[in-house]
Amino acid sequence: MRKEALYLKIAKVIEGQIDSETLRLGDKLPSIRTIQHTYDVSINTAKQAFLELESKSLIESRPKSGYFVSKTSRRKFSLPTVGKLKSSQDEKHPEDLIGRIFDTLKDKEVRQFSLGVPDKSLLPIAKLNKGMIAAIRNLNDSGTSYEPVQGSINLRRTIAKWSLVLDGKLTEDDIVTTSGTMNAIYNCLLAVTQRGDTIAVETPVYFGILHVARSMGLNVIEIPNHPITGVDLDALKKVLPQIKACCFVTNFSNPLGCLMPEAHKKELVNMLTEHNIPLIEDDLYGNLFFGTARPKPCKAFDEAGIVLWCGSVSKTLAPGYRVGWVAPGKFKDKIIRQKLLQTISTPSLYQEVVADFMEHGRFDHHLRTLRGKLYGNCLKFQRAIEDYFPHNTKISQPQGGFMLWLELDKKIDAAKLYDIAINQKISFAPGRMFSLHNQYNNCMRLNFGLEWNEKLDFDLKRLGNIVKSAI
Amino acid sequence: MRKEALYLKIAKVIEGQIDSETLRLGDKLPSIRTIQHTYDVSINTAKQAFLELESKSLIESRPKSGYFVSKTSRRKFSLPTVGKLKSSQDEKHPEDLIGRIFDTLKDKEVRQFSLGVPDKSLLPIAKLNKGMIAAIRNLNDSGTSYEPVQGSINLRRTIAKWSLVLDGKLTEDDIVTTSGTMNAIYNCLLAVTQRGDTIAVETPVYFGILHVARSMGLNVIEIPNHPITGVDLDALKKVLPQIKACCFVTNFSNPLGCLMPEAHKKELVNMLTEHNIPLIEDDLYGNLFFGTARPKPCKAFDEAGIVLWCGSVSKTLAPGYRVGWVAPGKFKDKIIRQKLLQTISTPSLYQEVVADFMEHGRFDHHLRTLRGKLYGNCLKFQRAIEDYFPHNTKISQPQGGFMLWLELDKKIDAAKLYDIAINQKISFAPGRMFSLHNQYNNCMRLNFGLEWNEKLDFDLKRLGNIVKSAI
Repeated sequence: MRKEALYLKIAKVIEGQIDSETLRLGDKLPSIRTIQHTYDVSINTAKQAFLELESKSLIESRPKSGYFVSKTSRRKFSLPTVGKLKSSQDEKHPEDLIGRIFDTLKDKEVRQFSLGVPDKSLLPIAKLNKGMIAAIRNLNDSGTSYEPVQGSINLRRTIAKWSLVLDGKLTEDDIVTTSGTMNAIYNCLLAVTQRGDTIAVETPVYFGILHVARSMGLNVIEIPNHPITGVDLDALKKVLPQIKACCFVTNFSNPLGCLMPEAHKKELVNMLTEHNIPLIEDDLYGNLFFGTARPKPCKAFDEAGIVLWCGSVSKTLAPGYRVGWVAPGKFKDKIIRQKLLQTISTPSLYQEVVADFMEHGRFDHHLRTLRGKLYGNCLKFQRAIEDYFPHNTKISQPQGGFMLWLELDKKIDAAKLYDIAINQKISFAPGRMFSLHNQYNNCMRLNFGLEWNEKLDFDLKRLGNIVKSAI
Repeated sequence: MRKEALYLKIAKVIEGQIDSETLRLGDKLPSIRTIQHTYDVSINTAKQAFLELESKSLIESRPKSGYFVSKTSRRKFSLPTVGKLKSSQDEKHPEDLIGRIFDTLKDKEVRQFSLGVPDKSLLPIAKLNKGMIAAIRNLNDSGTSYEPVQGSINLRRTIAKWSLVLDGKLTEDDIVTTSGTMNAIYNCLLAVTQRGDTIAVETPVYFGILHVARSMGLNVIEIPNHPITGVDLDALKKVLPQIKACCFVTNFSNPLGCLMPEAHKKELVNMLTEHNIPLIEDDLYGNLFFGTARPKPCKAFDEAGIVLWCGSVSKTLAPGYRVGWVAPGKFKDKIIRQKLLQTISTPSLYQEVVADFMEHGRFDHHLRTLRGKLYGNCLKFQRAIEDYFPHNTKISQPQGGFMLWLELDKKIDAAKLYDIAINQKISFAPGRMFSLHNQYNNCMRLNFGLEWNEKLDFDLKRLGNIVKSAI
């Protein structure tokens, strides 16, 4: 048997497994080394077999995570519609709806597709606990004293080091720690706006941002977000004279999971620098990329100090730790002052634990595993939705993170659907939550950062049936 | 020898020890049981001896802490002058001065009389650490998940139970946890005022309140604070029509250490209820009383829900934990909403540790010890200042807490004195920090929440010499 034949034979075996659904969408393939041993072939033959499958779009490689069954090129469902530019008129905040969703978060029997964080089964809790016990022993006063207002020096140093993606621009002195990303954004908005100002956000947008903006008396313009490439810069350009600040999730926006291309990021920073408009960049999902590398934030292209780069470990390590940070550019002094006023300092211990976790490679290791699981789940969710939901369902194609955005039949009111679903112990986030305007009523956001199993697959089937019966 | 003679003899021995300074002001006396055994007398005789000394104002009993050498009735120095009513005019915030003081907090070689917290040698760090390790093991997810916005149910329940001083009025549902008291006050001000409103605070007042009020665009009226009885209600009455909220430390105000009498508290609550003016009651020192019992807060007399009662463990257990709370009365929903917007939730672990510490009597035990030490230190500081400072020095008579307020010769500029002192590695808080107006320039605040030893005594002597040489 010739070598070519050998790799093709292996590829065919795997293709057959994919066809028979022995290997299913999102499943991880055996490693090249395993193939090598199983078929007793050279490493090059094993690699060639995978290349063959990749060329057919049957599998996808993910750096340091391995190969996954993928059929993205065979998507049956189309992308959701791009939202419309909406300025501060006819607003109605979906507060009651958000309240109803929050109320069900406590119910442990409910399937929580509405969660805004990965399920705790995906978090490295045992390792964090070890880190916590070590930190208690190592810290001079075990975190009982106030720490410097700017935040733990160890954490700031580690974030600076570890933000290589920013081309090493940041130093510990550029960073201020916060109580999670929401607190970073709250303080950034407080620093760069005044009551009555107008800010730009993407649409659909995480409702927390809308909430905060309104509480500060800010007007909000919702800029269309493309499900793949993010903020529509042409739309933004039109409203530029009206706005005092932008607040965007440039990497894997919640709920769309879109990724602003690097060229757009550069253009955005140039445009805002020219008009001296600060950009609050909410980069809390940036490490959960499905592509080949961690995408750069806009901060990487910021020469004028107008980008306030916000991050946290709430989506990757421990939401409850409330460890976040901001590199506020030229607004640093203002941010530090506000932090002092609001709360004096952030608790030390959690920051030390996170710093240590990042410093010693455990964070990178955890992220690789987490990304692998999330990407696999994303594919599995998409397949299940294509199997179980009506054929006119539209579905996003997240480039990272753990949120899926579905656009259902126009007749469907997702808020009403929610009431039916919650009776069947299934919770999701109705689309209306993600805008100040009366839109996205037929949309829903699903969290796929959950432990995949048969029950989960079945719950998606049940949800699909609920949707079907509503048309 | 007759019994009467016996107790008198014992009393004379102790009085001799006080005269010879074998027992010094602020020292703790042997326990009644020790006296009983030492002199082989009945417990009643020992008690009578102490009563005799108490009747001469030579010693003072402190409940559950024992007897201390006191000569308060023999005070050589008079009380500081009462401040003047100051409205929002000719204000100049002492920001630079505050910045300078904060900068020296990092220097471990400096004697930190300027600290706003008790020295860590007075905190139960080892016990807290044990609690922390237990909490990590016991918590379902070790605090990695978001907790309910309102805060840890265990902590809220414990605060409610343990606030017996409020006549058991509070339930867990009335309390919202915060990131320390400053965060509670920040949120209370945000909830009850709008930009441009005027609030009343005491004078001299903790500068953090002034800072926050200004950052929110609030005008501030400074109400005279009597060094013993606190806020001058007659002065407050005059400005009542102008103000939208009061923000007072009713128990052991910082820096004066004064205590508003219960009758005043009732009058204050009645007055404010009548005018529907909210009272933000900052009760963070309430547990550090030198009297016979924990004084009630105004909250105990609040029927209308206008008192927002704020507390924390920052002054008693662990400043760095950032565990505080507020019982916001009728403003509860607003406060919860704001907390959600600013930071989603507070970290769980610290709250569980504090709840457990309070629940199992360890807090009460620790407070007894701490109060004993603070009261002793207060007397020792007063004695040392009477010994080492110029004779025209005026000094406060704190009823609790750990702050002393000194009024020096009118010629002295305490801000300039600070520069001299800091060169000699002594830091204190210049009086100017405690007002928005150009006053208290000849005053200083000293923290006596430090471990008493010869070095400390010597440092007070050095500070006294610096003051003397400045006249």
